[in-house]
Amino acid sequence: MDKLSLMTDLYELTMMQGYFSSGNREEVVFDMFFRRNPDDGGYAVMCGVAQLIDYIHNLQFGYDDIAYLKGLGIFKDDFLEYLRGFHFSGDIYAVPEGTAIFPGEPLVKVIAPIMEAQLIEPALLCIINHQTLIATKASRVCYAAGGGVMEFGLRRAQGPDAAVYGARAAVIGGCIGTSNVLAGRKFNIPVKGTHAHSWIMSFPDELTAFRNYAKEFPNACILLVDTYDTLRSGVPNAIKVFTEMRDAGIKPGYFGIRLDSGDLAYLSKKARKMLDEAGFPDAVISASCDLDEDIILSLKRQGAQITSWGVGTRMITSFTCPSLGGVYKLAAIKDSETGEYIPKIKVSDNPEKVTNPGNKEVWRICSKDDGKIIADLISLADEKFTNEEDLLIFDPVYTWKKTLLKAGTYTIRRLLVPIYKKGFQVYESPETMAIRDFCASQLDSLWDETRRFSNPHMVYIDLSDKLYDLKKSLLDNIHKED
Amino acid sequence: MDKLSLMTDLYELTMMQGYFSSGNREEVVFDMFFRRNPDDGGYAVMCGVAQLIDYIHNLQFGYDDIAYLKGLGIFKDDFLEYLRGFHFSGDIYAVPEGTAIFPGEPLVKVIAPIMEAQLIEPALLCIINHQTLIATKASRVCYAAGGGVMEFGLRRAQGPDAAVYGARAAVIGGCIGTSNVLAGRKFNIPVKGTHAHSWIMSFPDELTAFRNYAKEFPNACILLVDTYDTLRSGVPNAIKVFTEMRDAGIKPGYFGIRLDSGDLAYLSKKARKMLDEAGFPDAVISASCDLDEDIILSLKRQGAQITSWGVGTRMITSFTCPSLGGVYKLAAIKDSETGEYIPKIKVSDNPEKVTNPGNKEVWRICSKDDGKIIADLISLADEKFTNEEDLLIFDPVYTWKKTLLKAGTYTIRRLLVPIYKKGFQVYESPETMAIRDFCASQLDSLWDETRRFSNPHMVYIDLSDKLYDLKKSLLDNIHKED
Repeated sequence: MDKLSLMTDLYELTMMQGYFSSGNREEVVFDMFFRRNPDDGGYAVMCGVAQLIDYIHNLQFGYDDIAYLKGLGIFKDDFLEYLRGFHFSGDIYAVPEGTAIFPGEPLVKVIAPIMEAQLIEPALLCIINHQTLIATKASRVCYAAGGGVMEFGLRRAQGPDAAVYGARAAVIGGCIGTSNVLAGRKFNIPVKGTHAHSWIMSFPDELTAFRNYAKEFPNACILLVDTYDTLRSGVPNAIKVFTEMRDAGIKPGYFGIRLDSGDLAYLSKKARKMLDEAGFPDAVISASCDLDEDIILSLKRQGAQITSWGVGTRMITSFTCPSLGGVYKLAAIKDSETGEYIPKIKVSDNPEKVTNPGNKEVWRICSKDDGKIIADLISLADEKFTNEEDLLIFDPVYTWKKTLLKAGTYTIRRLLVPIYKKGFQVYESPETMAIRDFCASQLDSLWDETRRFSNPHMVYIDLSDKLYDLKKSLLDNIHKED
Repeated sequence: MDKLSLMTDLYELTMMQGYFSSGNREEVVFDMFFRRNPDDGGYAVMCGVAQLIDYIHNLQFGYDDIAYLKGLGIFKDDFLEYLRGFHFSGDIYAVPEGTAIFPGEPLVKVIAPIMEAQLIEPALLCIINHQTLIATKASRVCYAAGGGVMEFGLRRAQGPDAAVYGARAAVIGGCIGTSNVLAGRKFNIPVKGTHAHSWIMSFPDELTAFRNYAKEFPNACILLVDTYDTLRSGVPNAIKVFTEMRDAGIKPGYFGIRLDSGDLAYLSKKARKMLDEAGFPDAVISASCDLDEDIILSLKRQGAQITSWGVGTRMITSFTCPSLGGVYKLAAIKDSETGEYIPKIKVSDNPEKVTNPGNKEVWRICSKDDGKIIADLISLADEKFTNEEDLLIFDPVYTWKKTLLKAGTYTIRRLLVPIYKKGFQVYESPETMAIRDFCASQLDSLWDETRRFSNPHMVYIDLSDKLYDLKKSLLDNIHKED
């Protein structure tokens, strides 16, 4: 990743200049959270923490950066002098990558002097919003396919970072690999792919092209059959080559065909029959062509004989929902005299947009029985919960909706882990494939009712009594001032 | 930009291995083009050539890259040895950035040995698809607003590159600046911005926050008025501060308010009245809040008093159409003996997906009168056109649709310019702001009927007689083989 220190909104720097001039060095708490799941789904998948760490790790201003800022003519010299020596000195907490997450929960919490907390807002949001969006989309696509999904979106991604970090996010969300070799190298994830139409067209005829490919890659031989005529030319030629290999005693580890156009349901069923009749029941049929979770579900309903899915444009851009609206809101300011956090609330006409005040923690409550999520609980950071007591949780909007959890029937654990403490990194990101495994177990902890695409069951996100009371009293105070 | 040499699809490398083994060093012609304008509009705006040049400029494999590829266990040592010394040795032609472009036209043409032409496909598509998409979206947003649009999308972009190169594309498409400081520095484009809700919340009250901001930035003082209550608190407090500045004899160069939530039409009209009545008719009213071209048009129809627009999520992601489906197709193979190009065609059941064969050129035909575009003409590369002869152009689908252009009434010029020749860069990208000016003149050459959002008039893209005949004869030959 390039050095992104200047990748901030100008207003962060003008606000920093303002805080600098007025001597405001207060320590503040900011929360990053989102308000709606992508695609009106039931959950999202946390992603991007490793790149957030990289960003903070490289956060400092070089001579050229300062010279550029000076040239803008809006900053004072003493502030630019401060920026020269800038380094992040605060704490950052984050929900680990691969975790199933829900609206309203603090996913990243920054506790730092206000100038530092403000500077990092845009990059933090950009990274987490993007990668969480793609990991979530991938998890949906993989859920529809039931596995065997490859990420093929490089050429349609919104720029190189979107391609490379998007591929990583897609693998975390469940893809078995990517076509993107740079992503493969950077994150040690499997890379996949065979050939394109141009390979076929560069030979005098399709059969010669197939034979050459099989000769070169006898062990992983997927032949693209739709360049001329899928059922009259492509599949018969592929069968001819597989037969020649069999006759020559070559046993490929992985072989079959790829469909990249046309009616995938019809063609895959016909091709399956032709391959089976020729004695190749183990030939793979892979398909690619503007796929997404809805099209895959529809193909499966039609009985399509596809076992391997190459998904591009619509996953790498999260086409049906191309942004996650994650926000970063001030939650508390530390009183420099007492050391207490003074909670802050942002009101709005829209009740769902009223923020949760104070320095907070998120807890995950699961059933001891089957490990499924019962609810998440947002509390103040200094509260403690164990599963040794009965726990009465309630809906923060419809407060009469209550659930009593009996001691011993549930597990409860904190979701936020420290990744920076006083400016020092205190967390090592797991390997990408380990995050993928963790994500799979997280998705297993969701009910199918939460994973379905239409009107999913929404996981309960409750507030602790203390946080609820604090929020209510702050809201009451605002209206007293009217 | 990071070194992106490995940012290719694995299948490009497996095909290269295949070509390498079979001794295929043929020179080929590939075209990059798209089939549909974004958002069903009437045009697109070419963008991304400068980054394509950067990519080619850095295209070589390091020791680590080769070691990684070797570790995959699918490539042979002699091929890896070839990759060690890899450098691009071909020609690249591109339509200059900022040009208005249309479906089916070759936008980038690569003439190179097949292995080289194949390798660069995914990065070329990723860069041009993304930036063209965003420049096009921005041109639509700016057309709706009639100017005064700022790019504010960093936090919702699909990763850092999408934010930085997206900001550049948005400025080329017509935005007056960006909030993204890194984009400002990299591309020498104006940066804009004032403060956020957190600035207001970090002070005991709104008035104190406004006063502090005005003190710090008296020359560019846009106050965010919707933190508590726009009309009862925000606007009155802003007027109080502007009055204090006036009383103190301070004349800000640029001042006013920003609305970031609520009913922007209603609030802007009310705020305008309050500002005017207080004697501030020159106070700017800027607005931001999930804006795009449709919402801006609607606000204008409602008489909203907004003169400055901050557009984020929906422009930086091209929300309503988050990908451009640009493709890269083999058009010809050079006969190594005769040096002639053997044209190649890709057929499809869908007539619009049949490619145009051969080594081609694109010409722009404009009216000598008013400079408006009459049509584009795709020809073979060795054809020549001047405006000294009558030109009969015809629709390639409905061939009876013909237009006779009389000599002297039109101008005709080539759109493709060489950017690489025999592997050497032969083109210097203009400054971003110069590209923005060029783009503005290009958009002026479109009829409003082409720029409108619903059922726009589609610019005619015609084929020369020679190209049409070639295409027809290739298609006839295919069917003879049936």
